[in-house]
Amino acid sequence: MTTYRHFYVKSRARTSPDINLKDLPGSAGRLDIVARCINAAFWLSYGIRKNVIFHTILHGEPNAPVYIRLEGEKLRKVSPDERSIAIFIGKALKKFDEECEIESTPGIFVARKSFEELLEENKDKNFYLLDENGEDIENVEIRNPFFILGDNLDVLPEEKEIAIRHGAKVVSIGKKSYMSSHCIAVLNWWMDRYEE
Amino acid sequence: MTTYRHFYVKSRARTSPDINLKDLPGSAGRLDIVARCINAAFWLSYGIRKNVIFHTILHGEPNAPVYIRLEGEKLRKVSPDERSIAIFIGKALKKFDEECEIESTPGIFVARKSFEELLEENKDKNFYLLDENGEDIENVEIRNPFFILGDNLDVLPEEKEIAIRHGAKVVSIGKKSYMSSHCIAVLNWWMDRYEE
Repeated sequence: MTTYRHFYVKSRARTSPDINLKDLPGSAGRLDIVARCINAAFWLSYGIRKNVIFHTILHGEPNAPVYIRLEGEKLRKVSPDERSIAIFIGKALKKFDEECEIESTPGIFVARKSFEELLEENKDKNFYLLDENGEDIENVEIRNPFFILGDNLDVLPEEKEIAIRHGAKVVSIGKKSYMSSHCIAVLNWWMDRYEE
Repeated sequence: MTTYRHFYVKSRARTSPDINLKDLPGSAGRLDIVARCINAAFWLSYGIRKNVIFHTILHGEPNAPVYIRLEGEKLRKVSPDERSIAIFIGKALKKFDEECEIESTPGIFVARKSFEELLEENKDKNFYLLDENGEDIENVEIRNPFFILGDNLDVLPEEKEIAIRHGAKVVSIGKKSYMSSHCIAVLNWWMDRYEE
């Protein structure tokens, strides 16, 4: 049986499909962060992790919240660089439909969804909220995980409250404040060792 | 006393300053890899690791080898996204001087230098060559480190031979073949824990 790894990264990126690829950190609302997180979640040197599912909700103007999901088993055509990943997020935003979830390109899904709805749908998994002050990962059993991470700013208190209400365990990979993409690289590596 | 962490990543990127920023993975010769490695080497959520020194040698046409070094203590103006980092590498390539090392922008240095010369200059450090089949990092004492990594292809046998001749220890972070940038993120995290 495949054990899936779910990662959710909160984002403040803009929700308009006209992404300025020359300015992902600026006018696109730190879309570079989401792109690097997706890179860290899926890519190995030779291929894609099929057991990873990546979730994000873009909270920026003008059409928030937009939920985007990438599934490793189905993901095709995307390259691991920020620009390529941003282009595919743009395609998802372009095909967004208020009424129903759309598979915009192979393995990438877009829909209207709130953070609370997302957790509700995934309550069969174990939620782990990343926070410097959480319990050290070394002392936590990671099973059927759904990790919740902030972007460059932390998750809001009300989001943390929603996560806790859904049973999230607050875990830490260290006292330093790491970039979300580096957290994901470390978590993937940690779980690889764990499973070996 | 600050303990410095050195990372070297071999690169096949082009050595011409006219980098096509829309095609880092293609015509620029996988410059996206170098950019992500630099991101992983230096950035924390709030600031830059001042104790990191990053080295690369670009081996692509038309002017190889070009050696580039970034020093965390002096690094300024660069943003953590691939495009910004690639722009600064372009500036370094533009200011390249056959005769002497140039500081092209704050904290970024460019010169003519071979891999063997680089190791010779750094022989006061301990070389660790990353390889899936090396000794597990858990069983290795890391002290005053100079890590040597390949890009998407491994280091060549003759480069490995040069490293071994300079006393490099072959170490592994796992059996999977990880992207170089993910290796660096894990190594930084590993050493953070180590030092705490």
